[in-house]
Amino acid sequence: MKFTVNRQSFIKKLNDVSRAISTKTTIPILTGLKLVVTDNEITFTGSDTDISIETTLRANDDNAELTVEEPGNIVLPARFFSEIVKRLPEATMTIAVKEGFQANITSGAAAFTINGLDANNYPHLPEIESNDEVTLAGDVFRDIINTTVIAVSNQESRPILTGVHFTLAGDEFTAVATDSHRLSQRKVTLPNPASETHDVIIPGKSLVELSRMIGEEQQDVKMRLAENQVLFMLGDTAFYSRLLEGNYPDTSRLIPSESETTMEISAPALLAAIERASLLSHESRNNVVKLTLSDTATDATATIFGNSPDVGAVEENLSTLALDGNDLEISFNPDYLKDALRSFGQSQIKLSFTSALRPFTLVPSEDGENFIQLITPVRTF
Amino acid sequence: MKFTVNRQSFIKKLNDVSRAISTKTTIPILTGLKLVVTDNEITFTGSDTDISIETTLRANDDNAELTVEEPGNIVLPARFFSEIVKRLPEATMTIAVKEGFQANITSGAAAFTINGLDANNYPHLPEIESNDEVTLAGDVFRDIINTTVIAVSNQESRPILTGVHFTLAGDEFTAVATDSHRLSQRKVTLPNPASETHDVIIPGKSLVELSRMIGEEQQDVKMRLAENQVLFMLGDTAFYSRLLEGNYPDTSRLIPSESETTMEISAPALLAAIERASLLSHESRNNVVKLTLSDTATDATATIFGNSPDVGAVEENLSTLALDGNDLEISFNPDYLKDALRSFGQSQIKLSFTSALRPFTLVPSEDGENFIQLITPVRTF
Repeated sequence: MKFTVNRQSFIKKLNDVSRAISTKTTIPILTGLKLVVTDNEITFTGSDTDISIETTLRANDDNAELTVEEPGNIVLPARFFSEIVKRLPEATMTIAVKEGFQANITSGAAAFTINGLDANNYPHLPEIESNDEVTLAGDVFRDIINTTVIAVSNQESRPILTGVHFTLAGDEFTAVATDSHRLSQRKVTLPNPASETHDVIIPGKSLVELSRMIGEEQQDVKMRLAENQVLFMLGDTAFYSRLLEGNYPDTSRLIPSESETTMEISAPALLAAIERASLLSHESRNNVVKLTLSDTATDATATIFGNSPDVGAVEENLSTLALDGNDLEISFNPDYLKDALRSFGQSQIKLSFTSALRPFTLVPSEDGENFIQLITPVRTF
Repeated sequence: MKFTVNRQSFIKKLNDVSRAISTKTTIPILTGLKLVVTDNEITFTGSDTDISIETTLRANDDNAELTVEEPGNIVLPARFFSEIVKRLPEATMTIAVKEGFQANITSGAAAFTINGLDANNYPHLPEIESNDEVTLAGDVFRDIINTTVIAVSNQESRPILTGVHFTLAGDEFTAVATDSHRLSQRKVTLPNPASETHDVIIPGKSLVELSRMIGEEQQDVKMRLAENQVLFMLGDTAFYSRLLEGNYPDTSRLIPSESETTMEISAPALLAAIERASLLSHESRNNVVKLTLSDTATDATATIFGNSPDVGAVEENLSTLALDGNDLEISFNPDYLKDALRSFGQSQIKLSFTSALRPFTLVPSEDGENFIQLITPVRTF
């Protein structure tokens, strides 16, 4: 194996697959990057068994400046190889593998020799035979991930809740996550209905990496589902994730259909007030803030209150856009509300309450049907 | 005590004194920020006993928007108070202290009440009676600190080596630091000779904080020395540090006066090569790179070599500007050389070697008298 390549083009591909490579794996070869070189392209593969990423650098990409002298394949220690490539002195580099899986990496006057592994011992990627493909705009899908993944559980005691539940029926695509204290649900109408119905749970960690990889690029993401794997295609890059097995709880019955008190407010204004109140709640043992809503004939007030016996207290009247219904005093974990509020960006939102011990919901004032955040209050009496 | 103030002006002063405030102190009141409010100014004080910082916000500074309704003083929990002030909603805030050392902080609709402490229990700052003042340009002094403090020891086994040794005699100001493996020495000629001779050791940690505080500002730094304290004045801010007690070792005899081999090279080019070589040395147990210098009748070559038995090896021919003298093979800790090379910026430098087991020196090719870095090699045979 021997090829010469533009270093920056190579590094970009290396960074993409490095997302899947962990130093903490129990399978030593998976700390490596697999390179497969043919006459006109290099295929990069990285995997931690949960996620696998594969991408290709092609000789017909002018920026790649790729010339292959001899095809072949090798597995190189990923973290270390990546540090070397990033520090080489020249714009191009040459990698040559001789017998014994030793790779020579040369660029200008610098010559590295590093020990690799036999690529034939690298695990095979999952095969996804399904041809039922769903296409989503990259920025829409990234937004669906980022607004739902905040509600997945970090606790392995109920593994199913560490994933986001996606359902696809006709042109309706729904994502929902809950850690049993809060819930986030997004619905999107697809431009082209899917031919099959799907119901899968994708690990939150996989989705976070996928969202980062989508980044700010505007390109489409194609999704293919199989029995226990999902494949996302982003241009020349394939992102595989395992699926979580089991039945996701029925979350539809958790969302209240009626309310006794409603408040409309600007999401960033409420977020700033909650951030101030949580400065104090974080210093106390139970991390709870209290919201008091009062709608009298002459005045409607919403007050946030946080305190810590050791440090002090904070009280703030909120500037609401509307406040209607029964008086209410409700306490909750401010960190859940902060996560939920951030997902609404600069929007105006509507909060709907039933009673002090029942979950309350947040929806955008416009289009309240397709995006809902739900938070369970905390009993303080 | 009651005053109203522009929040941004207040935060700037708060950040300055916060450098001296540690959460890890064994004296609880020192986790606090001391505020002393008179009719026309607020004095901020922070201290961890090693370093103390005092600064003043004046009513005649228009940006301060300071109006004092009632003078007084208080100690407030620094970290927590600072987070509150930074998150308040309006451009100004009002702080009022009533009985029981409780402070009310209000800004817009937000009202905090936090528990403070009696300012009368706050330790007194050191008194520096000396009037012998040395004035240094801020950027020159910051540069002296940053290029010498890299060589101070982190080990408390020889406390004296955790400081930088400053001597002042006439118009000659010298700073030197060594951890016994390397040494860095700077000399500066002062525009105005000092009337007294001084010889002090200032803790490296104090100097790092002072250097950060000098920052990019062009203003002068005034230094006053006393028996066991040093005071630096930067505009309205006073920075006190304790001095280390004891005799600093005589470092002048460590610097070799002659050499057998010399090499001239661009500092950033050598740094890049050493960074590459150290990628491999860091993976091996002894973290050593080898430099081979050979000056034959036909050719002069300098080669850097690093290796790790597990991972691989690297070899690189250096592009030297000049190479003269005896052939030499010398091994050293690349991290010491990296620190030293960074202190030369983009300069050309001259390295001078005596033998494989004797310290070697680095000086700028221009002005080699006033700045010297010294590194002790490692025996590998």
